[in-house]
Amino acid sequence: MLIARVIGTVVAPVQHPAYDGQKLLLIRPESPEGETAGATLLAIDRAQAGVGDRVLVVDEGSSARFLLEDDLAPVKTTIVGVIDEIELRGQRIYLAGEDR
Amino acid sequence: MLIARVIGTVVAPVQHPAYDGQKLLLIRPESPEGETAGATLLAIDRAQAGVGDRVLVVDEGSSARFLLEDDLAPVKTTIVGVIDEIELRGQRIYLAGEDR
Amino acid sequence: MLIARVIGTVVAPVQHPAYDGQKLLLIRPESPEGETAGATLLAIDRAQAGVGDRVLVVDEGSSARFLLEDDLAPVKTTIVGVIDEIELRGQRIYLAGEDR
Amino acid sequence: MLIARVIGTVVAPVQHPAYDGQKLLLIRPESPEGETAGATLLAIDRAQAGVGDRVLVVDEGSSARFLLEDDLAPVKTTIVGVIDEIELRGQRIYLAGEDR
Amino acid sequence: MLIARVIGTVVAPVQHPAYDGQKLLLIRPESPEGETAGATLLAIDRAQAGVGDRVLVVDEGSSARFLLEDDLAPVKTTIVGVIDEIELRGQRIYLAGEDR
Repeated sequence: MLIARVIGTVVAPVQHPAYDGQKLLLIRPESPEGETAGATLLAIDRAQAGVGDRVLVVDEGSSARFLLEDDLAPVKTTIVGVIDEIELRGQRIYLAGEDR
Repeated sequence: MLIARVIGTVVAPVQHPAYDGQKLLLIRPESPEGETAGATLLAIDRAQAGVGDRVLVVDEGSSARFLLEDDLAPVKTTIVGVIDEIELRGQRIYLAGEDR
Repeated sequence: MLIARVIGTVVAPVQHPAYDGQKLLLIRPESPEGETAGATLLAIDRAQAGVGDRVLVVDEGSSARFLLEDDLAPVKTTIVGVIDEIELRGQRIYLAGEDR
Repeated sequence: MLIARVIGTVVAPVQHPAYDGQKLLLIRPESPEGETAGATLLAIDRAQAGVGDRVLVVDEGSSARFLLEDDLAPVKTTIVGVIDEIELRGQRIYLAGEDR
Repeated sequence: MLIARVIGTVVAPVQHPAYDGQKLLLIRPESPEGETAGATLLAIDRAQAGVGDRVLVVDEGSSARFLLEDDLAPVKTTIVGVIDEIELRGQRIYLAGEDR
């Protein structure tokens, strides 16, 4: 699983019911300290995340399908939670709401 | 899921019915701003994409097989939608048709 | 499978029973010598690991689901063991408890 | 799916019937223009490819197993076709047989 | 599949029968010429490999489970064969036993 930051949104009509009514969010993988840590991905949101939120991402097709409850969905990347707090070697380095 | 740009086509006869009549498109992963963000891939097209289009790509075998409706297809990378619009931190940075 | 170091913890409410009561640990992939060897991941802990421990990580959804005994869990990265000892070309270079 | 160049062969006895009589080919991922684009892999050949050929590769276990018609084969990387032609933004940049 | 070199061993008790009596080997992905080609991994050995051997590795969970004959094993990376010989563009560049 990855830490990422929601940085935007994408509009792309997909001819598959699994995408109906799903927001497509741009997410940038990050280090715990908030530095970019990989190429930007597109994710389906299952955690009411918004632009600026730090999120927990699962990048695996089966996980995405379980969350959408659609066994045949062509999906891979899902936001499963909004991160409230990150502690690095005993020190709190992130608390949601403090860095926006 | 990835953002990519369709940059070309490949002709390669594959001895498997899943590839019959399928276009093979060259796709270059991109950042939201349009910079190259990974090695070029080959994808099957399920979205009537053309060279120059920015597209939504799912790089997972099961997703590709669901879209081809072929449970035994040796496929992995599929274009599932053409991107109409990208918004980064509240600003629209891409609108299909404006950058060709 | 990967060698990683547990470097911290994350609090992120996930609306799925598979995450109830699970610690989310920050893990940094490492070389045998202890150098950073990839982007930080988030893992579920199945080995009573603590911050500072070197651990054995399996980064695959099915493995994670088998360990949680939950066939439909949206999970991917799991700590399966705490590393006691690393031997590199016949020389012991790590023994748990000696480098904290 | 990837573009790669067949650059050699490997002899490695594997104690599994799926490998009996299978050539193991060294393949180097390439950009459309022919530059190295990733670490060399080992692949099973399902397309009568030879050293020097540019090939279409699927790097996914299920795909490899479907092609070998062996549900339990420990295999992942398969050459599924020899590339005849690559067209980049409307220009033909590769035609099999012209660059050997 | 990957070429790798066995460079060491790891001791890490794992609370799962699939790991009972399994050696955990440190493997370093390599180019055909023997240069490091990726981050060190941990693998289960199904080929009686030893430190110094060049090996054929399959890094996929299902393959690992088939080889262990354990459908629910939390495993991903397996050594399936010891490499005897590597030929690059028609020239033999590696023969087991000659470079130790």
